[in-house]
Amino acid sequence: MAKIYDRVALIGLGLIASSMFWAMKRGGLAGEITGYARSDETRRTAREIGLCDVVYDDINDAVRDADLIVLCVPVGVMGEVMAQIADAVKPGATVTDVGSVKRDVIDKVMPHIPEGVHFIAGHPLAGTEHSGPRSGFAELFDNRWCLLVPPSGTAPEPVAKLRSLWEGMGSNVEEMDADHHDLVLAVTSHAPHLIAYTMVGVADDLGRVTDGEVIKYSAAGFRDFTRIAASDPTMWRDVFLSNKDATLEILGRFTEELFALQRAIRQGDGAHLHDYFTRTRAIRRGIIEAGQDTEAPDFGRGGNARK
Amino acid sequence: MAKIYDRVALIGLGLIASSMFWAMKRGGLAGEITGYARSDETRRTAREIGLCDVVYDDINDAVRDADLIVLCVPVGVMGEVMAQIADAVKPGATVTDVGSVKRDVIDKVMPHIPEGVHFIAGHPLAGTEHSGPRSGFAELFDNRWCLLVPPSGTAPEPVAKLRSLWEGMGSNVEEMDADHHDLVLAVTSHAPHLIAYTMVGVADDLGRVTDGEVIKYSAAGFRDFTRIAASDPTMWRDVFLSNKDATLEILGRFTEELFALQRAIRQGDGAHLHDYFTRTRAIRRGIIEAGQDTEAPDFGRGGNARK
Repeated sequence: MAKIYDRVALIGLGLIASSMFWAMKRGGLAGEITGYARSDETRRTAREIGLCDVVYDDINDAVRDADLIVLCVPVGVMGEVMAQIADAVKPGATVTDVGSVKRDVIDKVMPHIPEGVHFIAGHPLAGTEHSGPRSGFAELFDNRWCLLVPPSGTAPEPVAKLRSLWEGMGSNVEEMDADHHDLVLAVTSHAPHLIAYTMVGVADDLGRVTDGEVIKYSAAGFRDFTRIAASDPTMWRDVFLSNKDATLEILGRFTEELFALQRAIRQGDGAHLHDYFTRTRAIRRGIIEAGQDTEAPDFGRGGNARK
Repeated sequence: MAKIYDRVALIGLGLIASSMFWAMKRGGLAGEITGYARSDETRRTAREIGLCDVVYDDINDAVRDADLIVLCVPVGVMGEVMAQIADAVKPGATVTDVGSVKRDVIDKVMPHIPEGVHFIAGHPLAGTEHSGPRSGFAELFDNRWCLLVPPSGTAPEPVAKLRSLWEGMGSNVEEMDADHHDLVLAVTSHAPHLIAYTMVGVADDLGRVTDGEVIKYSAAGFRDFTRIAASDPTMWRDVFLSNKDATLEILGRFTEELFALQRAIRQGDGAHLHDYFTRTRAIRRGIIEAGQDTEAPDFGRGGNARK
């Protein structure tokens, strides 16, 4: 794979940035990769594990001379961080981000983008429940989608170049409009996360009553919720606050449906329940056919599951 | 491992019964294992794949002479099936079940248990999203809990024997009261399943609008819900209808919490969200420490995940 950027700067060194580093190294996609993280401890860890060619203590030193700057910070501070580095970004460079919300990020970041610098919002649909500089690995983006949201009027060349980088890291890339992105993600990710957080919170309250039994007997369903609900609290707080409208819209529909199913249970309407569950089962088949999961049964024991 | 029962009859040949068969064979726990399923097709499949030593076309032929009869049918028909076999069960035999609800099953089955026959309700907390006679495997119960609910006054010997069988199949066994079981399971399994079904249904409605994008971009959270929501519709219809009170109680608490979080989002109360998500993250740690899941990040690609 050919080198795509001479110098890439990763701002914020968590799961996504560290995975990008290893994926770029795997593919030989960047000449030099610099890094910056706000906390001393993260910078120390990054240096210790060889994450980034150089880790700078000053954010502007990491950004200066970079051809691509990737903002890998929580959605709520994207605008602030962009304001901080605006003067150091070199003309002709591209700035992108990896946040889970796009309209709010574009609105907050764009005003700080200097003349002659390209901003192309981005969102790799990949992750695990772990976070921090040690959690990354080169394969995270393999066969996963990365959505690019170039603001209208963006020149085609920098978009094509950024697309090549993501493809080089293993992703499939699509371009999408910011509002559409935020609605689709509210359905596939943001609402499910809030629901999982809620259910785990309810169980925790009851868990104190039943003396740890909720954890002990978590195998049948609840365990998958805890995995989702173990994701980074700061990242998710920001996601909900900055994709407020779409998330609340989907949660409204969810509550409506849940009430209808609760009523069916209360009234003993087995036909309604059976029809509903049959329909949802078919969706699973679609996801397996779309290559976004495997058919191997998962009962939380990884390699132990029969293929 | 020593033989525990001379003759075991499996009634209903789905995921649990077929896994029990392979697990009993693995451990040499039963002399002969007979089987019965209501549908011709299931019986044909069972014979084809060697599931059960003998598969009978008549349920009473499968039951006759069995020392242990295991009811592996949906919770809603347990009572009916017990009534049907009552005359064929031999004196001194033990009847058990594997249903996900215990109070309702005990209430429905007990009246049909003949004098001199022991009934010990049971529930292995194990499963996958697959169903049917081909879905079973010997390892399903390894290191999973099996809860036994002996009605008051049950003699200790048959309980000890049934416990040995489950332990021989790899399970950890605990005894529990029926109502307590139903509440704990409402939290750890029944409510999470209904919530997953609901969210998948909402996404399906929107998926038609957004032309398959919901499936295409399912990787970040939603995918885990579809796995849960792919479980057997008949089994789950019966679970909700027969554990109505506990399920509705937990769903009520869930809705309350969800509304509180929705309000925090609407009002921009980031501190409330961050505190909540930090608390739920800690629960995940408890589950890993309890040995009910591994720490390996799961992003839906099984063996591909870095350990």
